[in-house]
Amino acid sequence: MKDFILKGNICYSKNKKEINTLENSYVICVDGKSKGVFSEIPDEYKKLTLIDYEDKLIIPGMVDMHIHAPQFAFRGMCMDLELMDWLNQYTFPEEEKYEDLVYAEKAYSIFAEALKNGATTRAVIFATRHRYATEVLMDLMEKSGLITYVGKVNMDREATEALEEDSALMSAYNTFGWINDINGKYKNTKPILTPRFIPCCTDQLMEELRQIQMTYGIPVQSHLSESPGEIDFVQFLRPDNLFYGDVYDEYDMFGKNDEENTEVKTVMAHCVWSTEEEVELMRENGVFIAHCPASNMNLSSGIAPIRKYIEKNMKIGLGSDVAGGHSDSIFRAITDAIQVSKMYWRYVDMESKPITFAEAFYMATIGGGEFFGKVGSFDEGFEFDAIVLDDENLVHPQELNLEERLERAVYLGLDLNGIKAKYAGGQKMW
Amino acid sequence: MKDFILKGNICYSKNKKEINTLENSYVICVDGKSKGVFSEIPDEYKKLTLIDYEDKLIIPGMVDMHIHAPQFAFRGMCMDLELMDWLNQYTFPEEEKYEDLVYAEKAYSIFAEALKNGATTRAVIFATRHRYATEVLMDLMEKSGLITYVGKVNMDREATEALEEDSALMSAYNTFGWINDINGKYKNTKPILTPRFIPCCTDQLMEELRQIQMTYGIPVQSHLSESPGEIDFVQFLRPDNLFYGDVYDEYDMFGKNDEENTEVKTVMAHCVWSTEEEVELMRENGVFIAHCPASNMNLSSGIAPIRKYIEKNMKIGLGSDVAGGHSDSIFRAITDAIQVSKMYWRYVDMESKPITFAEAFYMATIGGGEFFGKVGSFDEGFEFDAIVLDDENLVHPQELNLEERLERAVYLGLDLNGIKAKYAGGQKMW
Repeated sequence: MKDFILKGNICYSKNKKEINTLENSYVICVDGKSKGVFSEIPDEYKKLTLIDYEDKLIIPGMVDMHIHAPQFAFRGMCMDLELMDWLNQYTFPEEEKYEDLVYAEKAYSIFAEALKNGATTRAVIFATRHRYATEVLMDLMEKSGLITYVGKVNMDREATEALEEDSALMSAYNTFGWINDINGKYKNTKPILTPRFIPCCTDQLMEELRQIQMTYGIPVQSHLSESPGEIDFVQFLRPDNLFYGDVYDEYDMFGKNDEENTEVKTVMAHCVWSTEEEVELMRENGVFIAHCPASNMNLSSGIAPIRKYIEKNMKIGLGSDVAGGHSDSIFRAITDAIQVSKMYWRYVDMESKPITFAEAFYMATIGGGEFFGKVGSFDEGFEFDAIVLDDENLVHPQELNLEERLERAVYLGLDLNGIKAKYAGGQKMW
Repeated sequence: MKDFILKGNICYSKNKKEINTLENSYVICVDGKSKGVFSEIPDEYKKLTLIDYEDKLIIPGMVDMHIHAPQFAFRGMCMDLELMDWLNQYTFPEEEKYEDLVYAEKAYSIFAEALKNGATTRAVIFATRHRYATEVLMDLMEKSGLITYVGKVNMDREATEALEEDSALMSAYNTFGWINDINGKYKNTKPILTPRFIPCCTDQLMEELRQIQMTYGIPVQSHLSESPGEIDFVQFLRPDNLFYGDVYDEYDMFGKNDEENTEVKTVMAHCVWSTEEEVELMRENGVFIAHCPASNMNLSSGIAPIRKYIEKNMKIGLGSDVAGGHSDSIFRAITDAIQVSKMYWRYVDMESKPITFAEAFYMATIGGGEFFGKVGSFDEGFEFDAIVLDDENLVHPQELNLEERLERAVYLGLDLNGIKAKYAGGQKMW
């Protein structure tokens, strides 16, 4: 079913600063794409199936720009540590387990089920370095109905022995194998090249990945300038690079292949401590920023200067970063983004105005959605992702307008138990 | 039913830094008080009723040291404003409505029902300045089974005309009337003197409240050093006082009556920007701090220096501060307290180590519980407040120990739909 009409209270971003809220309106989906929102059904669409969601809210699906599937199992635990300790003591030992496909199937099934039930319709996902476990995850994501990028991780140093790949060549070999295995296998699940981060990737591995990227033209995801300790380590490892992102750029995995002058679609998680030059290169090259406020708090990393990125008109989406972030809810990421921006204003830069609800909502939908194409809006031509929210159980004594209901639904986490229907790419998921 | 035994996985603070986690153990309640936790039932208690909660977690009830009942209706809305604007544009107009007892009954019923269903067993509550509506709230809280302090607010300036009381004398008169009305009426619901904050209370009103406090010996709650703008305003209004808290102290509502050398049990919400002298006086006088991290983020107030307060061995509990805070969950306040302490460490003072999970859990239970007496633990002699948590639906692929299950339950907000039973003061609430 890719042609239909939904009726209800429709909310979506009008632009980066404002939200459209339309009571009792119709959003029309034809061939998986929106034809726009109407107060009455235009004649040409009157024969389409109408689903009436009555007083419920219909909003675009959420886009999670950064989530680690194998870390879902230990979300909300061991949160008293900083990034590097947390990686070594908990994350790497847990990720080792995904060598075992039985374990991978069990754990990834829980992950896929959770994402299916939540507000997220699109996600950019880290798996582990294990090729076959990554394919298990991709099978499950395809079944879930979500539209995702999934990356087999590449890492050949600075992890536990069991987790490091044997060599740069083995890592490349397995990456080729993985991409070829899944070639043409899925409709909604695509591969993304995933060097874990510079500390875990030798120069040789980066060069291999550069070649793979050029061969297949697939997008890239990684981590960037998350935490001061990590950045110092990168500087130690790569003393000749001007800044952290410059290393990715040297291997043509930072938005652009300079030699061939082609786009290399790239998303970098965090960007908390990016230098001016790094920011400038991200902007020039159109690198997407996955802003992960909960993770940046939990791991004591810091607060990304999102107001600055917005003013520079950069590409920004939100990430849950499970399990640095403890929740896979992008509703939660919206409110976290607002909250940390207020602390940034208060403690770091009083010129950086806090992010508004409308701005954070935009990042969670169209902002991240752009990584997938025209996604995150009900304007004509956008791919049709939607969730239907029932806020009836959030009883209130006063009149509420639609703006208030939307803000409240997000702040109170109505995605946990208030979603009544979900659509991705014009397909009803449930 | 005040004599019984609960069996399950029992978790509670061992001290300020550690949590006891006891699998398959027994906690015994006699006459509403804990007799302690045992691995086997001592002979003398073998005849008591046993309730077996199997693999569930049994933890102390949460204590909310600061919540505004009339603001519950608009929690999670209009969060793009700072404190003073938020008060004038949303809070005061909403609170005006509580002149109408029909509205008050409707709104407060929703509030009481929510608190009853959540993890909170004890709360210190602001009502509005309306005497009769406050009594409506107290009736509802008594019915809920929670054990609470409820305050009719005093305010005779700097609000909307409809919300300000007509004069200091009228405010005092209504406060006397209120206290006398409810005298002896409730078992679990007690009055607390509630000057809103210095900007809303004239000198004359403060003097009247001082007299009322001395007459009845009831505790005091108010706000302190929440936001720089508010503090500047207090300095403007009271130029001769050394610091904000000094004004409360001048009227003997800051932990102590100096003249009579008596204790005046006092809780002050926020204490984000307290000066060294203010902190020292709070410490000396035993003033409780209600730490409200979500509110302090939402209203861009700042981050309270909780590590410093802990090191000074001060009295600290957690507050949801609905609707400055958008959620009434003290589970959420625990994780918020940890998160903001990490940002404080990162941006304000690297000598202030982040708060650990165990420390925040202590504040949420024994820390705030001390305001009510011996509350917040299962050690012998503590009043018996407990919640039973079912984390079965939080599926996981790996083995988890009890520490991990507890931390996860709190981080993932299991208080929203995972509470299976609740006890306050030895009484089963549901």
